[in-house]
Amino acid sequence: MEVKEIMSFVEENLRKLYTNREPKGLYEPISYVLSVGGKRIRPTFVLLSNQMFGGDKLEVLRPALGIEVFHNFTLVHDDIMDRADKRRGRETIHVKWNESTAILSGDAMLSEAYELMCSAKPELLPSLLALFSKTVREVYEGQQFDMDFESRTDVSPSEYMSMIRLKTAVLLAGALKVGAILAGASEKDADLIYEYGIGIGLAFQIKDDLLDVYGDTAKFGKNIGGDILCNKKTFLLTTALTTADAESKAELLKWINAENPNPAEKIKAVTGIFTRLGIDKAAEAEMKRQYDYALKSLSEISVDSPEKQTFANIAKDLLYRED
Amino acid sequence: MEVKEIMSFVEENLRKLYTNREPKGLYEPISYVLSVGGKRIRPTFVLLSNQMFGGDKLEVLRPALGIEVFHNFTLVHDDIMDRADKRRGRETIHVKWNESTAILSGDAMLSEAYELMCSAKPELLPSLLALFSKTVREVYEGQQFDMDFESRTDVSPSEYMSMIRLKTAVLLAGALKVGAILAGASEKDADLIYEYGIGIGLAFQIKDDLLDVYGDTAKFGKNIGGDILCNKKTFLLTTALTTADAESKAELLKWINAENPNPAEKIKAVTGIFTRLGIDKAAEAEMKRQYDYALKSLSEISVDSPEKQTFANIAKDLLYRED
Repeated sequence: MEVKEIMSFVEENLRKLYTNREPKGLYEPISYVLSVGGKRIRPTFVLLSNQMFGGDKLEVLRPALGIEVFHNFTLVHDDIMDRADKRRGRETIHVKWNESTAILSGDAMLSEAYELMCSAKPELLPSLLALFSKTVREVYEGQQFDMDFESRTDVSPSEYMSMIRLKTAVLLAGALKVGAILAGASEKDADLIYEYGIGIGLAFQIKDDLLDVYGDTAKFGKNIGGDILCNKKTFLLTTALTTADAESKAELLKWINAENPNPAEKIKAVTGIFTRLGIDKAAEAEMKRQYDYALKSLSEISVDSPEKQTFANIAKDLLYRED
Repeated sequence: MEVKEIMSFVEENLRKLYTNREPKGLYEPISYVLSVGGKRIRPTFVLLSNQMFGGDKLEVLRPALGIEVFHNFTLVHDDIMDRADKRRGRETIHVKWNESTAILSGDAMLSEAYELMCSAKPELLPSLLALFSKTVREVYEGQQFDMDFESRTDVSPSEYMSMIRLKTAVLLAGALKVGAILAGASEKDADLIYEYGIGIGLAFQIKDDLLDVYGDTAKFGKNIGGDILCNKKTFLLTTALTTADAESKAELLKWINAENPNPAEKIKAVTGIFTRLGIDKAAEAEMKRQYDYALKSLSEISVDSPEKQTFANIAKDLLYRED
């Protein structure tokens, strides 16, 4: 299947998961959150990787949906923690229903993710579940590090990279490896497609950090400077705080500690400091390094199939995306 | 092992689970909640059932801990939903830390529970995980029904029984069946010990409902009448509302809908209605029926070992407990 076909295949089957289940108070919010959409990149990765290694889409479908349900579970609980009212333009569960519903429905989604994983062939369950459990644990650890970083101003770029590796990259990588394991790929190939996922996951996040500051509002879809306003520890800010001269650092800290600064002024000033220090160039270089790592890992995979080129194209689109 | 030895074996190994893991912000709350204690009845059931069917305690230990970690996860998230400040005399996680920590640590406990389950022998994983997933799903459904009942006054006793079956009994029953499966018990025996668990789980909850109204404060450890004050849909209240004559029902509804009633007066009046209607006798009869069902299921199990008597004693202690 082509990527677009895979995406519709995922979408169609995802919508069937939660129809007419009781009690409604538990399952309707889940159905709602899964219908909000999104790119379905993770389950698509499971299926595409599986296809690359010669797997059967029907055997990998439910674990692929499990990865997407897990991802959406993290969004439901993260949105409570972040007090986010909207997600993809629609009200979040704790707003549309209430917080108890968001907690419990999220819990049920996490369990459903495990249940979907468990539909794999029995002989593959131990390695599959070991991978999934490790991935899940790492995602929580990433989320906790991210929360810990909020109250710190001494986060190093390498700590930041470790955090986003856990919070973001391992799930993309894990999705790819799930597809590989279920297709019976060799351990080496499964590890290589995992590393491709880590590389593009990290590159993706740095790109996101860059777009938040240097992006085009119309294309990016979010307001520019959101990260700057809430002092988010991004690749840009952690690099700036670590490498800046004393004067620039003091200026940055002044803006970070300012109470009720004028938003436009703060964004302009901090962006100016970043540019003056060459932080944009440093971020682009790091992004390129991760991109190269992803492509190198991909090229070392022992199979020769068209999906390899598809993965290379995905990486390229990611690096040069404007939104 | 005797029950007491099993309990210490569980306690000792539970405490080892979360030592020195990073990030501390994620794992310290888990370690805290698992150290608060409790009777460890569920993992003890796993081990005792496993022993009855001739299993090996070292093979069943981690899944047994998984059941206890899962149970404690439900307490952590329920306490957020119920806004409970204390649990077993100590501050709950969302009070001692904050709500985000309680959500995320709970999530990590749920995943840890699955991870502990997955340490079972690969050939037993499919049946074990199918049972565990079903149990987990049912516990959520029970919790949701319980929340749905809060805003209703037309809950029937049979709806109430279905709800506590899901919310409370299936986890006790599931624990027993986990032990049976891991010892290689026959499907029939595994189902029988499960049904024993359902019976005592339901009997236990009805006893709890009775003690809340007719118990002795000193022995019960909680204040008497707490359920009455918050109009909790217990076996007593649902039976009373369903079977009462028009006058008694009106009187009950008057107390349920009263704004800021005098607590002592409300408890006295509602208890009086219950007694007049013979609700205490009806509850005792239902409890006895569940107890008999538990003992009958137990007696039909095909093995002949001392643990069978231990399970019979546990059921008896439960029925005649005063706290």
